[in-house]
Amino acid sequence: MLNFYTQKIEKYLEKYNLPNSPENIYRPIDYFLKIGGKRLRPVLTLLATELGGGDVDNAIHAAISIELFHNFSLIHDDIMDDAPKRRGYATVHEKWNSNIAILSGDALLIRAYELISKQKNEHIPDLLKIFNKTAIELCEGQQMDMDFENQNEVTIDDYISMIRLKTSVLLGCALEFGFIISNQTMENRKKIYDFGVNLGIAFQIQDDILDLYGDPEKVGKQVGGDIKANKKTLLYLVSKNIVNSHNHNTLNAINELKDLDKKIEETKKFYDKNGVLEETKKYFDFYHDLSIESLKSLEVIESKDKLFHLVSYLFNRQS
Amino acid sequence: MLNFYTQKIEKYLEKYNLPNSPENIYRPIDYFLKIGGKRLRPVLTLLATELGGGDVDNAIHAAISIELFHNFSLIHDDIMDDAPKRRGYATVHEKWNSNIAILSGDALLIRAYELISKQKNEHIPDLLKIFNKTAIELCEGQQMDMDFENQNEVTIDDYISMIRLKTSVLLGCALEFGFIISNQTMENRKKIYDFGVNLGIAFQIQDDILDLYGDPEKVGKQVGGDIKANKKTLLYLVSKNIVNSHNHNTLNAINELKDLDKKIEETKKFYDKNGVLEETKKYFDFYHDLSIESLKSLEVIESKDKLFHLVSYLFNRQS
Repeated sequence: MLNFYTQKIEKYLEKYNLPNSPENIYRPIDYFLKIGGKRLRPVLTLLATELGGGDVDNAIHAAISIELFHNFSLIHDDIMDDAPKRRGYATVHEKWNSNIAILSGDALLIRAYELISKQKNEHIPDLLKIFNKTAIELCEGQQMDMDFENQNEVTIDDYISMIRLKTSVLLGCALEFGFIISNQTMENRKKIYDFGVNLGIAFQIQDDILDLYGDPEKVGKQVGGDIKANKKTLLYLVSKNIVNSHNHNTLNAINELKDLDKKIEETKKFYDKNGVLEETKKYFDFYHDLSIESLKSLEVIESKDKLFHLVSYLFNRQS
Repeated sequence: MLNFYTQKIEKYLEKYNLPNSPENIYRPIDYFLKIGGKRLRPVLTLLATELGGGDVDNAIHAAISIELFHNFSLIHDDIMDDAPKRRGYATVHEKWNSNIAILSGDALLIRAYELISKQKNEHIPDLLKIFNKTAIELCEGQQMDMDFENQNEVTIDDYISMIRLKTSVLLGCALEFGFIISNQTMENRKKIYDFGVNLGIAFQIQDDILDLYGDPEKVGKQVGGDIKANKKTLLYLVSKNIVNSHNHNTLNAINELKDLDKKIEETKKFYDKNGVLEETKKYFDFYHDLSIESLKSLEVIESKDKLFHLVSYLFNRQS
């Protein structure tokens, strides 16, 4: 059902004409855009444009600008996280080097702004403002995420703030782009933005859960990767909150285990015994329900079916 | 005579309110903006606004956006060039680390766009378009500069293209910003842009010359730094062009010298004997004269005295 939109995105990207030179800027960009991803964010812009009563073809530059921005942030995050792979392919700094990844990332960010400037003049100021706000928030979220690694005390509130900034506000922005282009009211713009942000938070929490509880074949990665990498996921933070003086030492001992398979197994046992999954799911439900409420409260003439469909697609993908 | 403008810039930057957190993003930005430079570029925006008959106070966000962009590009270039110092102070990646320099640079670039979005809506689309074009060109120029290091054949045309992109177009953009804000004609916008670009090229050529022929006290750095670092400056490229079969080997032998003081001395002797300085000055004169012509041809009511004054200030600073 979303193919119509995804194909528009892919078609644009295929024809997207970057210069050939300097090739150390443009080949990495071309490579990274081709190894691709789901194109979820630009699809959101097109869906929101349609929902707002606008013409999706008038939103295509803005939609792609979101996708370019997303890819810029991945290229730079991959350098900072020293990640060798992205979507199964070598990251830009691995395939080329860090300098090339920095500069081609910078160029990609600027190209995102270039596409915003191709929208109708009357919409540019509003698009630019929400885009800037969102882009800054993503940087702040990435920094918080890196800071958490060396921080002993991370609260659940800190964590939710971080994922809101690092991953969720861009979904809100992608949707609001569509409502700016379809000249929707400020009230509706806020509602669709909130829908996107809460959807993003719920989605990220689900990601944390699936890392340990998902079907590895459907999730497409091995079970317990977050535990192996000592990531402070919501499951981990909830487990820290749940422990009492009695089982505090047990949890610490598990976290210190050197045998990683055993660590995953013992962590799961501990979570099962102490209701960690159930408690984490409450957070998921909270943000999931918030997003649905925002979507329901939107006052538009067009059918919201496609967005509801997208929500259930996102939340049923791997369970 | 330019103090009035510089002070406006400094006052804005002093009050420029960045968040405190995450401090690993905002402390580096704050530090780097404070160790600061001449603020030449934002002054150009204010001067052009006045020259175009506009109110300089209406151009202040745009002027600062140019300064933020300039500083973003320095922070990232310093990582790529592995430079330990900038303006006598530790670079961001030295004082903190590369990851922090990447991310705070990104945030600074986005903040530059944020300031553009604070100009009047009617000017935002035009400001955004020329800014995007310029920002992309700077990235391309930086990549060309890095590519030149490992490239055997660099022509003088390549070199001029590189300095045009890496340093000159931003001066053109800073000036054109002022003419957009003061609602000048497209024809005048083009002329003031060309004035800035050619001024920038002449200025960069002068920089190359002063590195070897300047008064070290006035230039503020040791003589012959470019020769020590094996930089492909215009003097170097001209010398390569000038050599004939007879002195070809002499030049090669000089370039291979390990004793760096001797290398500087011998290079200078060679340049003197073969008219390298005179030939290089021809390029300077060409771009200098082009810029003056553009400035003269501008049809505006306000006096151009301040810009002519600035030109002679820039070209008499260290000779």
